[in-house]
Amino acid sequence: MPIYPFLQAVRDKRPLVHHITNWVTIFDCAQIVKSFGASPVMAHAPEEVADMTGIGAALVLNIGTLTTEVVEAMKLAAASANRKGIPVVLDACGAGATPYRDRKTLELLDAAKITVIKGNGSEIARVAGLAVETKGVDAGEVAADLREVAKSLAAKRECTVVVTGAEDIVAGAGKVLLVRNGHPMMANLVGTGCMATSVIGTFAGASPDKVPEAAAAGLACFEIAAELAVQRSDGPAAFKQQLFDCAFKLDERQVEGLQRVAAVG
Amino acid sequence: MPIYPFLQAVRDKRPLVHHITNWVTIFDCAQIVKSFGASPVMAHAPEEVADMTGIGAALVLNIGTLTTEVVEAMKLAAASANRKGIPVVLDACGAGATPYRDRKTLELLDAAKITVIKGNGSEIARVAGLAVETKGVDAGEVAADLREVAKSLAAKRECTVVVTGAEDIVAGAGKVLLVRNGHPMMANLVGTGCMATSVIGTFAGASPDKVPEAAAAGLACFEIAAELAVQRSDGPAAFKQQLFDCAFKLDERQVEGLQRVAAVG
Amino acid sequence: MPIYPFLQAVRDKRPLVHHITNWVTIFDCAQIVKSFGASPVMAHAPEEVADMTGIGAALVLNIGTLTTEVVEAMKLAAASANRKGIPVVLDACGAGATPYRDRKTLELLDAAKITVIKGNGSEIARVAGLAVETKGVDAGEVAADLREVAKSLAAKRECTVVVTGAEDIVAGAGKVLLVRNGHPMMANLVGTGCMATSVIGTFAGASPDKVPEAAAAGLACFEIAAELAVQRSDGPAAFKQQLFDCAFKLDERQVEGLQRVAAVG
Repeated sequence: MPIYPFLQAVRDKRPLVHHITNWVTIFDCAQIVKSFGASPVMAHAPEEVADMTGIGAALVLNIGTLTTEVVEAMKLAAASANRKGIPVVLDACGAGATPYRDRKTLELLDAAKITVIKGNGSEIARVAGLAVETKGVDAGEVAADLREVAKSLAAKRECTVVVTGAEDIVAGAGKVLLVRNGHPMMANLVGTGCMATSVIGTFAGASPDKVPEAAAAGLACFEIAAELAVQRSDGPAAFKQQLFDCAFKLDERQVEGLQRVAAVG
Repeated sequence: MPIYPFLQAVRDKRPLVHHITNWVTIFDCAQIVKSFGASPVMAHAPEEVADMTGIGAALVLNIGTLTTEVVEAMKLAAASANRKGIPVVLDACGAGATPYRDRKTLELLDAAKITVIKGNGSEIARVAGLAVETKGVDAGEVAADLREVAKSLAAKRECTVVVTGAEDIVAGAGKVLLVRNGHPMMANLVGTGCMATSVIGTFAGASPDKVPEAAAAGLACFEIAAELAVQRSDGPAAFKQQLFDCAFKLDERQVEGLQRVAAVG
Repeated sequence: MPIYPFLQAVRDKRPLVHHITNWVTIFDCAQIVKSFGASPVMAHAPEEVADMTGIGAALVLNIGTLTTEVVEAMKLAAASANRKGIPVVLDACGAGATPYRDRKTLELLDAAKITVIKGNGSEIARVAGLAVETKGVDAGEVAADLREVAKSLAAKRECTVVVTGAEDIVAGAGKVLLVRNGHPMMANLVGTGCMATSVIGTFAGASPDKVPEAAAAGLACFEIAAELAVQRSDGPAAFKQQLFDCAFKLDERQVEGLQRVAAVG
């Protein structure tokens, strides 16, 4: 499947991507959106979130440092996004780590139509109702077949499910796409998972009629930037700088030459 | 007008600059203040903001991720700054994006004496009461003559008004100063606008008797650092690193050789 | 005293370090923990902090941008850490700057068993009840003998006290350890103090039976990374990138060759 047209759509349309996200990686989420050529805005006051989503092209929710107040703001923003018909991407960051986090994740899924649920293997397994061992916000071991978990959750919630890992799984609209780009160095940098979610929101915002494909294309572009960045760095912080700048400069030859996106089953 | 004496004053006096700012660029605001040789402190608890401002040389308010609680803390801090007679700089970040944001901006302007109102063209136009189209926190198109808007708002609010853009406008004390430094790469980095505000607060804190000139000098120094940084980088993240470090190392020859500050009307 | 075994323990055990910290340096605290090979998690909702600490190996509390709500969450997390018997490290960030900050610091010390109290000279002097002049979150002048202040506070609170400075003092369990690593460039980067606290929590989490030694070893490793980073950079932002990456790559030869840790009195 061609990937570059999805990046081109981001750069042409420059979608405004409203985030209600965590305080750890909030700058990085904004900067990766900007590096890909789109426009991030972060706002979480309950009095304005519906209006801010109302001028946006996509909504990204990330529960990394959730509080009850912020989750309530997320519900207002998601309802606004649903009314406008724009994609809502939820990063189930840390699901499985505490009962509160699990409960709030399900509350969000029940309160609004979420277009894309994204997490690592243990997070998505937890959202799907499986028992998992987690270690804070890092991925734990999962015994289940993640492709089946993703497909089943996508069918149940009528959405797209993204499971990140050495092989990313994108299940939605009856399809499964696999993205085999990326590099282990990504695990040494705080925030690569959060940034991937913001990228999915950005690409979905620019191509709202093809959400699973846009999600896979966004992941591929982000992870190709990571592959290029690893070659130009020798530690996680140098890698981070290169990641933003390789994303900024990504061209068609790089994207189509390096992408490893495949449709299965 | 000579610029370097204003930088020298910052480095000599090392003003403590109290910020109540947004969660996206809070580190960057602190680091740019420190890179210029001053001392940042971030604190937003209503129980302590008045005391913290009371030991400071300037107060910087930025509504980028405002909430009602944080705006109330801003009012307490601003009142403390007014009692002490130190400059208060307000970044009208995202004004025009939502009615709530506009309302809170005006509340702040009415609640205390704001020394400097700073924003991009669409934000300042909105604060001045004009109808504008905004795109989140990025500048939208403005039909009005921004110099006139700035002069009129400065007269109405008896303050200094700073409009950033390809040409920065500083209107205050019956004067208009223009700063023509900077580089388009700044628009590819999240937070350059917020950092510019923190720099204005820092320079005003070191030269509180010459606020318009200090604001223009601070903008010029920041944007000269940006010009130097662009030459040493090839993407927004490398640019960011160089921006901090060029600010840290900025010398008189660079400042006076590159500055493009002019007084008009 | 050998230092490298403490770093090895961090890399082997990969402790989960739960933080309730400030919004300025929250990313940097997480990344320095990850760069040393451990696993950071940031969470501050009162409904989940006890559970999150319950799966952790150490708890780091930092009052840099405290609010009353967040301090209440810190108390719940600290009580959970006490029940589980894992180390609790408190950064008295900005103690002395406002009466509120002093009061909340003492509240935390009284509400739970704090394993390590860490601050710069003026912060620790303030926690010990001395009158000090502070300048926001930067160290002020202290007339007292800091070694004696640290020993006395450690005895009174039955904990380990860490005072950072050109010479770091670690007083606890009837011992005093001095760490003479580090570089003045650290003072030009926002967050080195906060990161040092996170490193102490990480090393204490991996070696909970030798907290004073682990704290000194962690400080030494962090400051040796800083010494190496200074050689590879020429400004605070380049230094920051190298600091993370030198920590990531730190090897036994570097650690034991450069460490300047000594036991005194």
